[in-house]
Amino acid sequence: MMTRLKVYADRMSQPSRAVLLFCRLNRLDFHEIKVDISKRQQLSPEFKEINPMEKVPAIVHGNFNLFESHAILIYLATAFPGIADHWYPADIHRRAKIHSVLDWHHSNLRHGALTYVVNTVLAPALGRPLNPQAAAEAEKVLLSSLSKLENIWLKGDGAFLLGGFQPSIADLSMVCELMQLEVLGEKDRSRILTPYKKVLQWIEDTRTATNPHFDEVHNILFKVKRKFQEQRLREANSGPEPNNMGGSSKM
Amino acid sequence: MMTRLKVYADRMSQPSRAVLLFCRLNRLDFHEIKVDISKRQQLSPEFKEINPMEKVPAIVHGNFNLFESHAILIYLATAFPGIADHWYPADIHRRAKIHSVLDWHHSNLRHGALTYVVNTVLAPALGRPLNPQAAAEAEKVLLSSLSKLENIWLKGDGAFLLGGFQPSIADLSMVCELMQLEVLGEKDRSRILTPYKKVLQWIEDTRTATNPHFDEVHNILFKVKRKFQEQRLREANSGPEPNNMGGSSKM
Repeated sequence: MMTRLKVYADRMSQPSRAVLLFCRLNRLDFHEIKVDISKRQQLSPEFKEINPMEKVPAIVHGNFNLFESHAILIYLATAFPGIADHWYPADIHRRAKIHSVLDWHHSNLRHGALTYVVNTVLAPALGRPLNPQAAAEAEKVLLSSLSKLENIWLKGDGAFLLGGFQPSIADLSMVCELMQLEVLGEKDRSRILTPYKKVLQWIEDTRTATNPHFDEVHNILFKVKRKFQEQRLREANSGPEPNNMGGSSKM
Repeated sequence: MMTRLKVYADRMSQPSRAVLLFCRLNRLDFHEIKVDISKRQQLSPEFKEINPMEKVPAIVHGNFNLFESHAILIYLATAFPGIADHWYPADIHRRAKIHSVLDWHHSNLRHGALTYVVNTVLAPALGRPLNPQAAAEAEKVLLSSLSKLENIWLKGDGAFLLGGFQPSIADLSMVCELMQLEVLGEKDRSRILTPYKKVLQWIEDTRTATNPHFDEVHNILFKVKRKFQEQRLREANSGPEPNNMGGSSKM
């Protein structure tokens, strides 16, 4: 018998959440191992043995290890028996479209959202300075990606990507990405997302279709969101504190 | 019977070349349709029907259309009968590793190489200004990616990625990406690639394993390389010409 699946993840990482959500939804027998990015644990020699790229998520399944969240989602959907077809359809045409949207995700929605959030909010907690110019450029990519999501990928009849009536691994990956915008200030997040009605509805539909797991996996994000909100409030009342959310903070 | 496969491509685009190379190597019955990026043909209403993202490559196979080169390569490897297993192995573990390297490619090697080449050489031909700052940042990503390629992806026994003894679709995708560096000045290209001996050997091995198709598909690139070389020589002798390689140039 194969040893139990190990998932190395930090729930503050959006692709980590997508993988954890998939495992929980499909009741896989797995063990979640926290790799705390705010403590640079992904750079440890032990983790480098698991993933030489020093990134989460990664999995170990028996003597097989794998990184890159899309590759992991596809592997899990095909390696474990009894996974419902809608997650990663066997039909080659539907499967090809899932690959297409997942490929598109990398240099578009992910690139825009990740770079924007890091350079607007998260960088200090990762030991880097905020970069307003990088944030401004990332915002363009993010808005263009949201427009394509709204008008192309969510064009079909169903509530999910590619017109699906049930979510696929692409819905998990991309909704988890957009959930990262929760850590932005409410005004900022609303300015970015409000014009995209279908996108907002799709996030809500994916959440509903995957709860209670969705909220459980995102719980840490909601906590960080509140922490940032309180911090912004304090700053608005008394000016910025030195070193807030700095390297030693526990996100 | 399905209508003949149509491949919409511009051979100056590295993912277009990867798809064309796969089709030729596997003797698929296909029709290559040129979408000239230097003439903005990817923005035409006709092409937008094929690919709403306005990018090459894209395919039409019967009434099925698809874009994103990795998704296309996987589709072709599974939709056509008799494709040799090494291109996209049926074994789920080997397949998962191919997905992993292809996913990694997007935000690493592709992001670095593409952004560097565009902002160092090709931008004027695409109607955009060169951007030395973007080029400098892209170079960091490119060099880091080459180091990971050398030390992680090319670590195995075989001549190809992931230790393979025969090339996969990932080798085609990533070698075609690196071939784009041919349009750089020889000094620049050599400075970037020379430290990575395994990478250089792997490019040569992939070329040998896929010739004569490899050279045929890259012929246009070699022509453009010579054009740029002559231009650099003229500039070195007499200073820059106005509007050289501008919008109307035929790359």
